[in-house]
Amino acid sequence: MKNRGSFDNAFKKGFVKAYSPSHISGFFEICDNKNPLYKGSVGCGLVLDSGCVTDVSLTNQVKIEINGIEEDANTSKYVLDNLAGESKITVSTDFEVPIGCGFGASGAGALSTAIALNELLSLNMTLNEVVQIAHRAEVENNTGLGDVIAEAYGGIVIRKKPGPPGIGVIDGIPLREEKISYVVLGKKLTKTILEEGDAEMKRRINGYGREALKELMRKPTLEHFMLVSRNFSLQIEIISDKCRDAIEAVAAEGKVASVAMLGDTVFVIGNSEALKAFGEVKESKLSNSGAKII
Amino acid sequence: MKNRGSFDNAFKKGFVKAYSPSHISGFFEICDNKNPLYKGSVGCGLVLDSGCVTDVSLTNQVKIEINGIEEDANTSKYVLDNLAGESKITVSTDFEVPIGCGFGASGAGALSTAIALNELLSLNMTLNEVVQIAHRAEVENNTGLGDVIAEAYGGIVIRKKPGPPGIGVIDGIPLREEKISYVVLGKKLTKTILEEGDAEMKRRINGYGREALKELMRKPTLEHFMLVSRNFSLQIEIISDKCRDAIEAVAAEGKVASVAMLGDTVFVIGNSEALKAFGEVKESKLSNSGAKII
Repeated sequence: MKNRGSFDNAFKKGFVKAYSPSHISGFFEICDNKNPLYKGSVGCGLVLDSGCVTDVSLTNQVKIEINGIEEDANTSKYVLDNLAGESKITVSTDFEVPIGCGFGASGAGALSTAIALNELLSLNMTLNEVVQIAHRAEVENNTGLGDVIAEAYGGIVIRKKPGPPGIGVIDGIPLREEKISYVVLGKKLTKTILEEGDAEMKRRINGYGREALKELMRKPTLEHFMLVSRNFSLQIEIISDKCRDAIEAVAAEGKVASVAMLGDTVFVIGNSEALKAFGEVKESKLSNSGAKII
Repeated sequence: MKNRGSFDNAFKKGFVKAYSPSHISGFFEICDNKNPLYKGSVGCGLVLDSGCVTDVSLTNQVKIEINGIEEDANTSKYVLDNLAGESKITVSTDFEVPIGCGFGASGAGALSTAIALNELLSLNMTLNEVVQIAHRAEVENNTGLGDVIAEAYGGIVIRKKPGPPGIGVIDGIPLREEKISYVVLGKKLTKTILEEGDAEMKRRINGYGREALKELMRKPTLEHFMLVSRNFSLQIEIISDKCRDAIEAVAAEGKVASVAMLGDTVFVIGNSEALKAFGEVKESKLSNSGAKII
């Protein structure tokens, strides 16, 4: 670890807050590797303004709170264990987006925790080093594969080679100011799919995921991303009937909805009247901004 | 060029607006190459919220306006010539930051023009392709070397290998919400230095620039960036006496000011009473957001 900084007042102040946007993956291909820095996914997704705020503070006990309730939160705990050393720290993360529903919430939690600890403890890590810790936390805990690099930069991120900044390779679709509307239909833990999914299911995801990326690159626009994502979600055969129904209802009004991967959430660019029949419709702006200290 | 999109309404609407943040380089090393995509600089700089807005519209003549006045604006013209084909387009860019004073204004103008034209003409370029055009426009016109990749992403960008996204390699200093204060003391055109600077001056810039990057990487914090940048600006022997006086006056109040490269502008993180003696003090927030359609 590098020397502690002398300029920084965070340690004296005793607490730091950091923000991370969230991320919806539209389609993906799993890229396995023994080295967690090279493990991840390729694909494309949208970075959302709605994310999380993490407060880290020097206390007399090691504790992680998610939305005010003490939890194990393994992904954030991995970051804390790796960065905090002997320091007694409380990590408290409040999410604007639901957890376990395809918003890359665990990645956003890990990334904001890493950024906040870097500042609090004057660890003097670069952005790439901070993001790499969060990426490792994600893939070692099977809570995500490609959210962290997108949440570090913002935008509509095309992940061309897996991994965090410094290893992964990204491109993007130029962003315009839009909002997405979404309905959460249930929970589907990425961990369950990644750990317990059978080989055939993973082959299916990867086959269609690879094709989806090629298809997107033929016409890298937001509208085409939505179409490619919808096709992918219909092809991989793991989405719920409710998701399928919502996609069809939105199609009937002439719009394109898709499923947040891996979650039980249906999203659409702009507004959708049809989506209202499936539950409470929430909104978030797309964001061109990455995680940061606030 | 790829197929024109069918979903996009920009062409029908006839105009598109895009925003780019600006960028202050603290120190740099010139990396020459015959291929403009590999030519550029390494170094580190701050992306500022204050930037420019470019409006592109289908008209009956090819015209470029900068802050409301028709100009040659070679960097923006390069982008227009390369992307617009036979289309008659008016490009109108309004800047929040001064031009020719070290804010990467020409890069911001070129980048916002490229993003706007990509949308207006449904060129279906990826973000990297769009940024590459703007980077080429900068280096072929000698108006900048490394602003465009920083303005595409936002943050405090460390440029480790020169070039635009897809070729250049970046890292960063995790961002926190801060503002910079600055005073513009005069104009200094990057073009003049890059085209007319003698070999000895370039050797000096490159020697100190290389050392500065190494020194920053030993402790990549915002405060250390300011110190390293100040040392660099004092060492390279091209800054004006006024700049030197302002840096000293700010040092006397216990703060660290430096010079926006290449410009005749002195900046400091937060506020500075001392800076007020040198002219009108303006402010901008640091920004973690890249250029986008608005």
